[in-house]
Amino acid sequence: MFTNVEHIGIAVRDLTASNALFASLFNTQPYKSEEVTSEGVMTSFFRFNNGSGQTKIELLVPTRPDSPIATYLEKRGEGIHHLAFEVTDIVTEMARLKAEGFVLLNETPKPGADNKLVCFLHPKTTNGVLIELCQERPLEGQ
Amino acid sequence: MFTNVEHIGIAVRDLTASNALFASLFNTQPYKSEEVTSEGVMTSFFRFNNGSGQTKIELLVPTRPDSPIATYLEKRGEGIHHLAFEVTDIVTEMARLKAEGFVLLNETPKPGADNKLVCFLHPKTTNGVLIELCQERPLEGQ
Repeated sequence: MFTNVEHIGIAVRDLTASNALFASLFNTQPYKSEEVTSEGVMTSFFRFNNGSGQTKIELLVPTRPDSPIATYLEKRGEGIHHLAFEVTDIVTEMARLKAEGFVLLNETPKPGADNKLVCFLHPKTTNGVLIELCQERPLEGQ
Repeated sequence: MFTNVEHIGIAVRDLTASNALFASLFNTQPYKSEEVTSEGVMTSFFRFNNGSGQTKIELLVPTRPDSPIATYLEKRGEGIHHLAFEVTDIVTEMARLKAEGFVLLNETPKPGADNKLVCFLHPKTTNGVLIELCQERPLEGQ
């Protein structure tokens, strides 16, 4: 089940400049930054109103030339890169969506930023919108 | 104060087809449709988990050739059109953002979909992201 828009990913060229820009826009500072080595990105997160259960903003800057974000910036420039939806059971949801005809970009859930398991859907099957499914990973020992 | 991502606007060419597509993706039906004559758009809204205080998805289809959505579709194709943020006081927020150097697309709040007062910020000042501020309008008689 889809339960919320977990975050919105925005591709930027200069994380320092864009952190300042969005801090000025939102009138709040980013609350964390995290590198996702597998995706070749450095991220920065903003949230609102204490953030409990609410949609976050994730800025994304490429850390290497073959990062998907580097390719996106070259093709489309800065802007909204993807929408991430929180789901209760990512494996069940991936199977359901595949059966519905959506194209999954990874066939098994993979680790993403912010302690999540994630799966991306190809935008050609979703009205040009890159969709991420995400589910919180259980803490170690659980 | 920014309190939440109120909704995400997605530009589509065929509302019937895209309603079916997103209903299949989210496994839920749109809960309302509304025309905004001033903007030349028909909208359709999806929400999750009963939707209380949560981010909605707004599909947007142009109803006339000079609609901003028609222009967007011609330039960029289908995809994410804007991010709308709920603010506690839109007039105060507009003044603050103008002073910070953001470019407002309307100088006074205007009526938008879903019983909101809205203001758009030019994407050239916001990393290529079209930002909408919105505030719930008081009910008549209040």
